[in-house]
Amino acid sequence: MTKATVEAPSNIAFLKYWGVADLEQAIPRGPSLSMTLHRCATRTTAVFEEGATGADEVLLADTTATNDAPELSPAPEAFAAPVRQHLSRLRKVAGRTGTFTIATRNSFPSAAGLASSASGFAALTLAALQALEHPVSPAEASVLARRSGSGSAARSVMGGYVAWPEGPDHAAAQVALPDHWDLRDVIALVETTPKKVSSRDGHRRAPTSPFFEQRIAHLPARLEAMEGALQNRDFAHLGTLIERDSTELHLITMSSVPPIFYWAPATLAVLEAVRAVRADGVPAYATLDAGANVHVICEPAQEDTVAARLAAVDGVHRVLRDGVGVGPRTDVPALL
Amino acid sequence: MTKATVEAPSNIAFLKYWGVADLEQAIPRGPSLSMTLHRCATRTTAVFEEGATGADEVLLADTTATNDAPELSPAPEAFAAPVRQHLSRLRKVAGRTGTFTIATRNSFPSAAGLASSASGFAALTLAALQALEHPVSPAEASVLARRSGSGSAARSVMGGYVAWPEGPDHAAAQVALPDHWDLRDVIALVETTPKKVSSRDGHRRAPTSPFFEQRIAHLPARLEAMEGALQNRDFAHLGTLIERDSTELHLITMSSVPPIFYWAPATLAVLEAVRAVRADGVPAYATLDAGANVHVICEPAQEDTVAARLAAVDGVHRVLRDGVGVGPRTDVPALL
Repeated sequence: MTKATVEAPSNIAFLKYWGVADLEQAIPRGPSLSMTLHRCATRTTAVFEEGATGADEVLLADTTATNDAPELSPAPEAFAAPVRQHLSRLRKVAGRTGTFTIATRNSFPSAAGLASSASGFAALTLAALQALEHPVSPAEASVLARRSGSGSAARSVMGGYVAWPEGPDHAAAQVALPDHWDLRDVIALVETTPKKVSSRDGHRRAPTSPFFEQRIAHLPARLEAMEGALQNRDFAHLGTLIERDSTELHLITMSSVPPIFYWAPATLAVLEAVRAVRADGVPAYATLDAGANVHVICEPAQEDTVAARLAAVDGVHRVLRDGVGVGPRTDVPALL
Repeated sequence: MTKATVEAPSNIAFLKYWGVADLEQAIPRGPSLSMTLHRCATRTTAVFEEGATGADEVLLADTTATNDAPELSPAPEAFAAPVRQHLSRLRKVAGRTGTFTIATRNSFPSAAGLASSASGFAALTLAALQALEHPVSPAEASVLARRSGSGSAARSVMGGYVAWPEGPDHAAAQVALPDHWDLRDVIALVETTPKKVSSRDGHRRAPTSPFFEQRIAHLPARLEAMEGALQNRDFAHLGTLIERDSTELHLITMSSVPPIFYWAPATLAVLEAVRAVRADGVPAYATLDAGANVHVICEPAQEDTVAARLAAVDGVHRVLRDGVGVGPRTDVPALL
């Protein structure tokens, strides 16, 4: 029996992944760029029993627990099925037979546009490969994490600032170290229930937008501009591009056939508040993944102001604070 | 001294006018289609004194008055200047010299996305031409109304369902009579203050959206589809196209550089309510001009249900009800 525990972070995309060349393999139509987060993460313990037969067991931690030994209970089938499918894939890659027991715990509300599938499948991939004693490079980990079907998991196996695809076989690559720039992500939670249309369905529907191909065509230039702003630590330029790209993702969803509206009324109130904060001379820029919650990117000196302003917006349930992170960690307590 | 009074209706665009080939002449880049309204209107009395010199006088009626003789007071310069400019244009067309006294009254909150400039400049054009004793055809009236700079005024000089441009010199034309189809417009007012970015500035900014040319390219096909649905009284088809086109107008504004956000948080709440109403089997479709208020188009049997559902939405100040109208009327009390 071998055991490994990995905590993999979520990430917030500055340039959004939306639209696929291959849905099952999660091969994107366009490039994306993200900041790996620090606190929003998924911790997964994988226990592998060589030669054992039977189904893999998938356990979920009680998310309300505050200690290091949360209660575990069997995951619902909708959660467990893609996990088991991914474990079979990894077993095959490692050339091993046996069964897994998996325990997993999110540090943040899942399925609310906070990319829990990114951190979840990154943690699962890394923990399972370690339990299988099958070491891989970060690029290989990125490719394997992505094959889970969660494309953004490809960017969660590395810290700092990550572009995808960059390497061979559509792997992600780090484009700036975490300590290159201490950016913060102040998250206004306006919705904590799962979104009505999954990202998977959204990706599938993206090409029905009459504006999708135009978006894909200008993404390489936007990536280049973003990478330049990142290297030069030009926050106003980077922020403007981040906000524009986020709006554009949602324009694609709203012009898909049938349309998908991820924004809640309070989302617009938060976006207004961000423009108001900026009009008051506080540089801060909003971005949303496929969901209603708003990530407000700022520098450390503005974090408190931004958090206070967001907390005051009608419809904001809670404000989370996060920032750029170092990537997956193994120095964390096991769940099993 | 000659005097004329005309009440011209507002209109709600099913296919939106956004983006100009010539801003001063209000020559559109793409076609548009609208339903002329009945109750939302502007009444204007024009008094022309042949040979008199001096500036034209522009008076505004107290909008809170409920009787036929509201108090009149001089219009603010921002309102009066384009009116005077338009009167000079019309005097030139008629080959007359003299001065105007103009009194005008809106039946609805102005500058809140209810196209008060459309009804205003249509009423002004028709009343002034009549006072100038210069009869014109509806197509000529459309061209002259448009030259005010308010493009949608081109569609408010006719009743029923109006496409623009259709005639020579970019004139609008009626494509269906008012009694062809009794459609209703239930208007959820969520904002009664003037919008932050004028339509004029919006038109100017439209080509900066990376999606603008794609929109322009597919508009002729959408117009044809809408006209077909209108002729066949296919409400589900027409409604789907109406809603799609409205969303698209706002996608263009939000992807303009810098972006324009006309939607208020309550706008999204109303759009959600419309989707919920529809999920309950009530055919109703939402459309917004460049503003935050939502026009919900339905058939007469659904009007009460729609109005009740909209009134219950958080953030809706008031619900107005209107429907297809016969066009400009002269059988109305004079304001002077």
